[in-house]
Amino acid sequence: MEVTQILHMNNGDDETSYAKNSTVQRKTLSIVKPIIEEAVLELLGDNIMAIESMGIADLGCSSGPNTLLLISQIMDAIHAKPSKVTELRVFLNDLFSNDFNSIFMSLPSFYNKLKQDYDNSRHPDQHVINPLISAVPGSFYGPLFPRKSVHFVHSSFSLHWLSQVPDGLNNKGNIYISKSSPQCVLDAYSMQFQKDFSVFLRSRAQEIVEGGRMVLSFMGRPSSDPTADQGTFYQFELLAHALMDTVSKGLIKEEMVNSFNMPYYTSCAEELNLVLQKEGSFIKDRLEAFEVNWDTGAADLDHNMPNGAFDHDQTITSSGQRVANSIRVVAESMLESHFGKEIMDEVFKKYTELVSKHLSNSTTRPKYTVLVTSLIRKI
Amino acid sequence: MEVTQILHMNNGDDETSYAKNSTVQRKTLSIVKPIIEEAVLELLGDNIMAIESMGIADLGCSSGPNTLLLISQIMDAIHAKPSKVTELRVFLNDLFSNDFNSIFMSLPSFYNKLKQDYDNSRHPDQHVINPLISAVPGSFYGPLFPRKSVHFVHSSFSLHWLSQVPDGLNNKGNIYISKSSPQCVLDAYSMQFQKDFSVFLRSRAQEIVEGGRMVLSFMGRPSSDPTADQGTFYQFELLAHALMDTVSKGLIKEEMVNSFNMPYYTSCAEELNLVLQKEGSFIKDRLEAFEVNWDTGAADLDHNMPNGAFDHDQTITSSGQRVANSIRVVAESMLESHFGKEIMDEVFKKYTELVSKHLSNSTTRPKYTVLVTSLIRKI
Repeated sequence: MEVTQILHMNNGDDETSYAKNSTVQRKTLSIVKPIIEEAVLELLGDNIMAIESMGIADLGCSSGPNTLLLISQIMDAIHAKPSKVTELRVFLNDLFSNDFNSIFMSLPSFYNKLKQDYDNSRHPDQHVINPLISAVPGSFYGPLFPRKSVHFVHSSFSLHWLSQVPDGLNNKGNIYISKSSPQCVLDAYSMQFQKDFSVFLRSRAQEIVEGGRMVLSFMGRPSSDPTADQGTFYQFELLAHALMDTVSKGLIKEEMVNSFNMPYYTSCAEELNLVLQKEGSFIKDRLEAFEVNWDTGAADLDHNMPNGAFDHDQTITSSGQRVANSIRVVAESMLESHFGKEIMDEVFKKYTELVSKHLSNSTTRPKYTVLVTSLIRKI
Repeated sequence: MEVTQILHMNNGDDETSYAKNSTVQRKTLSIVKPIIEEAVLELLGDNIMAIESMGIADLGCSSGPNTLLLISQIMDAIHAKPSKVTELRVFLNDLFSNDFNSIFMSLPSFYNKLKQDYDNSRHPDQHVINPLISAVPGSFYGPLFPRKSVHFVHSSFSLHWLSQVPDGLNNKGNIYISKSSPQCVLDAYSMQFQKDFSVFLRSRAQEIVEGGRMVLSFMGRPSSDPTADQGTFYQFELLAHALMDTVSKGLIKEEMVNSFNMPYYTSCAEELNLVLQKEGSFIKDRLEAFEVNWDTGAADLDHNMPNGAFDHDQTITSSGQRVANSIRVVAESMLESHFGKEIMDEVFKKYTELVSKHLSNSTTRPKYTVLVTSLIRKI
């Protein structure tokens, strides 16, 4: 399975599209926003650099409202204070099968809105910088940009994807690390992550100018014990159950489930520190963990109900549907290439049931752990 | 009509796709190849520049086999002689609605082929440069790339597209300059071209390093009299007839044809020289005109027939179909946005008939005039 050629968030804008099911990512972006602003402002405040042509990159930009939201946020941060920047080079990166066409189609209205916003709020001494937006397709586990061309790199919700499924996994009945997975499966996943993250840092170290910055956020886990992870861990366990249910119905062979594993890993702070130290090109400015609800929509829902009066069963069902969709839009391209398009609806119908049941049995709201780190390229 | 948001060559790879109907463009690329090679070699042979990180751009790259063919050709030229180049930045440009996704999907196999080709032919002293390919969506009648970032710019079959239909045209029953067009229509088209081409040169002058090169090829005409142009001129006259036929069938109103004009212009050498001189940033190294058959497929067809024995009627019909398709794939996005999708098949059915009849009545094979110019950025 060639991850770099297959993996993409679901295209389009229908009910099972990434564009319509990426509120967890959007929520994360709003939490990470002040960290991004801080990094950009420190970068621009560094008088030694005196950046005129600034290069910024978003790795794993995907396609949807979040993609250009980030660019707006960074541009706001750049315009917030006077600087020497007169040229802004924006690189949008994702894998080859990402829907870049959709992003490009939305650029004319994005440019118009930028112009309007700045026209309305402009101070006489503020010059407005038109971004030069380009797309750079390819895996971020390797070279992407010209040497020393980038000042700020951002990546949100992407670095939990591995470059490949770890070699030689024997992980029967599971599709990710599970309580029943042998220790060698845990080790193989951890090693693959460390190898990939190290290649990632080495590649970016070539491309980011000295003193340049990176803000990375991705799914992680709260402790070094992978099975203590209540987020991704359970999600993929339930997804494996849904696949095994499809086996029991005779729609696919058990062997197909046994030979499938997600190229995905939720790392912990210890692993990150280890790789950062070993690779050695970056100084760690921040490393934080925070939690995001599986269903970010649920919070709004509770809030909108008068006097807390709502139909509990229906809320759980629609919450289960939202959570199941949020996993479908990120995992479907990988599942489809292995199991075939035909059984996807069946699998995710069962999966929605299982997620709803899990939510209904949970005493607390299940959460993902998100890690965010702010790094500085060593001088 | 916003040309920059609507215009694109037909997507996909079916019978009316650009990918399957761009042999005229491919033919042109093969004629222009030695001029490109010459420009690249002179650029690399210039010891004062000593390029290490080379930027090349293809403007109006479209989507299909031609896009990456050009990159291969330029890379071959770069690898042909030892140079200091260690990094190759490739910018692919086209308008926002171009099908970049298709290009990106073909990149993994393109990279594999590049690697194989160079592995097979490599001399021990030759280092192979992996290109960093990016897409830059937007109109080339304006800024696209960072200042002084590009060494070589290529554009094939794109600069005959204007940034807009000239304002205030009164060109009843026509969709382009025709024998029945009043002089003010000719003048308006010529002025729009001169304005656009001047903006094009000024934009590129900011982005191309001193001594950098451009090779541009586009539809032109053999003399300053636009109606002497046997190529585009007739094609659009026949297309207007096909549209008027649809009017006579009551499918569209005549007013719709009267209010439509192609944002297209076939310039002549005099106009080009005038703009080049006036704008002043580039030195003209070459300016040549050559002819390409309307139906480039026909040449191969004749050649493949044993003893010249072939069914004349059938050949003309399939030739007419090919020529009609070759116009459909470039003009349909503009026509569709004005006249609606529903009548396209009807219009091009009639158009195929008219083209076939024209081919059958022609004593010589109808030809397009293509202009090619090689320019050097002044130091």
